[in-house]
Amino acid sequence: MNAPSDFQRKRPIPSGFMEALQQKFQERFSSAMAVREHHGRDESPFPPMLPDAVVFVQSTEEVAWVAKHCNDHHVPLIPYGVGSSLEGHVLALEGGISVDLSGMNQILAINSEDFTATVQAGVTRLSLNEALRDTGLFFPIDPGADASLGGMVATRASGTNAVRYGTMRENVLTLKVVTADGRIIETANRAKKSSAGYDLTRIFIGSEGTLGIVTEVTVRLYPQPEAISAAICNFPDLQAAVRSVIEIIQVGVPIARVEFMDAAAVRATNAYSNLQLKESPLLLFEFHGSTSGVQEQAELVQDITRDNGGMDFEWAERPEDRSRLWTARHNAYFAGLQLRPGCRASTTDVCVPISRLAECVEETAKDMDQASFPYTIVGHVGDGNFHVLMLLDAESQQEWAESERLNRRLVQRAIDMDGTCSGEHGIGLHKMEFMLAEHGADAIALMHSLKQAFDPNNILNPGKMLPQLA
Amino acid sequence: MNAPSDFQRKRPIPSGFMEALQQKFQERFSSAMAVREHHGRDESPFPPMLPDAVVFVQSTEEVAWVAKHCNDHHVPLIPYGVGSSLEGHVLALEGGISVDLSGMNQILAINSEDFTATVQAGVTRLSLNEALRDTGLFFPIDPGADASLGGMVATRASGTNAVRYGTMRENVLTLKVVTADGRIIETANRAKKSSAGYDLTRIFIGSEGTLGIVTEVTVRLYPQPEAISAAICNFPDLQAAVRSVIEIIQVGVPIARVEFMDAAAVRATNAYSNLQLKESPLLLFEFHGSTSGVQEQAELVQDITRDNGGMDFEWAERPEDRSRLWTARHNAYFAGLQLRPGCRASTTDVCVPISRLAECVEETAKDMDQASFPYTIVGHVGDGNFHVLMLLDAESQQEWAESERLNRRLVQRAIDMDGTCSGEHGIGLHKMEFMLAEHGADAIALMHSLKQAFDPNNILNPGKMLPQLA
Repeated sequence: MNAPSDFQRKRPIPSGFMEALQQKFQERFSSAMAVREHHGRDESPFPPMLPDAVVFVQSTEEVAWVAKHCNDHHVPLIPYGVGSSLEGHVLALEGGISVDLSGMNQILAINSEDFTATVQAGVTRLSLNEALRDTGLFFPIDPGADASLGGMVATRASGTNAVRYGTMRENVLTLKVVTADGRIIETANRAKKSSAGYDLTRIFIGSEGTLGIVTEVTVRLYPQPEAISAAICNFPDLQAAVRSVIEIIQVGVPIARVEFMDAAAVRATNAYSNLQLKESPLLLFEFHGSTSGVQEQAELVQDITRDNGGMDFEWAERPEDRSRLWTARHNAYFAGLQLRPGCRASTTDVCVPISRLAECVEETAKDMDQASFPYTIVGHVGDGNFHVLMLLDAESQQEWAESERLNRRLVQRAIDMDGTCSGEHGIGLHKMEFMLAEHGADAIALMHSLKQAFDPNNILNPGKMLPQLA
Repeated sequence: MNAPSDFQRKRPIPSGFMEALQQKFQERFSSAMAVREHHGRDESPFPPMLPDAVVFVQSTEEVAWVAKHCNDHHVPLIPYGVGSSLEGHVLALEGGISVDLSGMNQILAINSEDFTATVQAGVTRLSLNEALRDTGLFFPIDPGADASLGGMVATRASGTNAVRYGTMRENVLTLKVVTADGRIIETANRAKKSSAGYDLTRIFIGSEGTLGIVTEVTVRLYPQPEAISAAICNFPDLQAAVRSVIEIIQVGVPIARVEFMDAAAVRATNAYSNLQLKESPLLLFEFHGSTSGVQEQAELVQDITRDNGGMDFEWAERPEDRSRLWTARHNAYFAGLQLRPGCRASTTDVCVPISRLAECVEETAKDMDQASFPYTIVGHVGDGNFHVLMLLDAESQQEWAESERLNRRLVQRAIDMDGTCSGEHGIGLHKMEFMLAEHGADAIALMHSLKQAFDPNNILNPGKMLPQLA
């Protein structure tokens, strides 16, 4: 693959720098090759780019110490959660220190009257929900992977519940952040809303470790619904499915989840998760509410899908059936991989206004049908966001080049429809080339000025997200 | 009053600057005293601080021209919408040019399938909803005043619907913004979510005209509910009312509005709006949903309020009754003013985690009962946000000082409870003194670095929001 590791340009490490780090962290410092390799890769299609060393931090103060040390010596610092990013976010493009926050995994507070929880950045979404089990509350944001909350902040993550509950953008109240020079700030407080000054919280959400290191996250929680119900509906084509979704939202159904899978994704899921779903385009619904509210929502949705040519509306009301379905949906990525054993996947992530979604997916499917590799499409269709999983021969330069060309065409299509190159995965290395087309040079220049203001020595995850301007 | 006009420190206007502006804008340029006075005041308790001149712009390009002209000559520029800000935002602390955007009042697009509208910054919230009347959609953010969308962006406004629909923070998709040096950027696009780069949109929301001038706003819209119902419930005390609200949210009732009024606010409203509400603490509810959903919500809420000592649950199901009630609530500010004819009001705006709300309001009421002036309390209680309207003798230095002392105590109380000095009105001049206590010096330093990066010549609404650090 013509991978960006060709472009790794490591900065020199000043003498004495590593020794001081090792002395500070002792056995929680490592420059072993296996550890560096583990921290130099993510779920992107890129081969690893190794950091020079890894430190396993246990407190905000330790992170601050490392930041100051790196800043004083102009050594890159890359925050690391669980490595589930998809766009090369954690690859050490310029070498430096990977700061592993997975040991910061304490749940610091659950304020059930306020519907908030405060956790260290290394806590994962599933472990947070495990801790919430007996509170009657839950945290809805669910990227496929069991990502860390810090990582989810960094990529402005979302998932299948976003259509009802929003994304990380809407569900973080405040962050504890270590700045490039090792100061510790709290971006806000636990008030549900505030008009007191610049929105530091949202500045760090989606900043991919380039503006500061998030060490604590306070999120919004939601009451577990009294009733939950799920359903599946097959459609003759994508157009019918999307038209249904627009109408469902238009009439005000507070749908909790509505996911699209193309026939190939269904086939992969059947094989991987041992299901017998009909292998045509389908929508997977979930309804949250009171018992009668859920029933009312479901009836309305059933009417709307029928009017749009939907077939075989099927219920999954038992918790174990629902759970099986949603686990299968969350495993769609791994299911896809099994369609071509040994392959490496490259995933697209455009998001467009929903009025353009059917057109965007259709044109994309036509394009992809010409490809020499298999693909599947799944989508958070209520948000206008969908993913093409392109299953590539890991050794084939030609397939890689073809997938990149197809992705470029897809992104330009999305931008032309007033959409974005990334709905939820972030930019990392892989989508940097699209930033200029999406935002324009003047907006990118503003982003650069923000980066320069917050990280004047360019130590924080350098070389990511922002393309250089001519 | 010991008002900040004592501190107005006008910058010199370079020779030829005004002439060029006048030549460009002709009859849409004014340095008439009446026009400058009108643009040098808002709804804050401060006397006016006059800009040197006012220009009435009609396009983004004109705003860009003015910004470049001001930036080249280091002359302050203050965006002006309808002047309904409450904290001195538009006062010309350092003189300069007031840029009146009220003529930019075009609705540019309503995309009903996408639930978005794009408007020029001078469009007001009521005129937007008037334009939406036949679409089946509405825009929910409702500060008391008929503010301009640009102004609502600037202050990160919210209102009575925020408990269900969020604030401007959650309801803006993208902005057209003129930068300090006169470039024109689009902060994002119409995709419902995006992970593509820094959140420029949220950087400008709440920035009070200090980072750029918003000229176009794209907002989210919502389907008009199939059914709406309102109700009033009186309580023996505040504690019972707040306890009810916490339980209502805990059981997952998707309540659209829940407003608190103290007995004095009810009395004022009865007099001003010719109502006969029982003059004890009350909650004013609104329910949105399907017909049966609204009924179910309302029954649940009625049960919960009864369990908490609520009395006289009264319905307002007819649209005209509902409308009368909510108009009365929106007029609570003006109703309060009538309790002391000729007075000038100073309004507090703290917001705390809801678990601390009852305690915060109670301690505040005890404090206020010692004051030498009358007051009322109203609150967006589902968000933990409440306002004390302090009705001051406009000529009395002593009452002004007393109100400032009481507000300081209130803000410190809110900050100690992990809350904020401003839930929705912003900082302007009036709340600048609290920024350091709320955010800490390191966070304020970061905010200064952002301001410096975006507005290096400090021309955009200078002297507001950010306190100088020692």
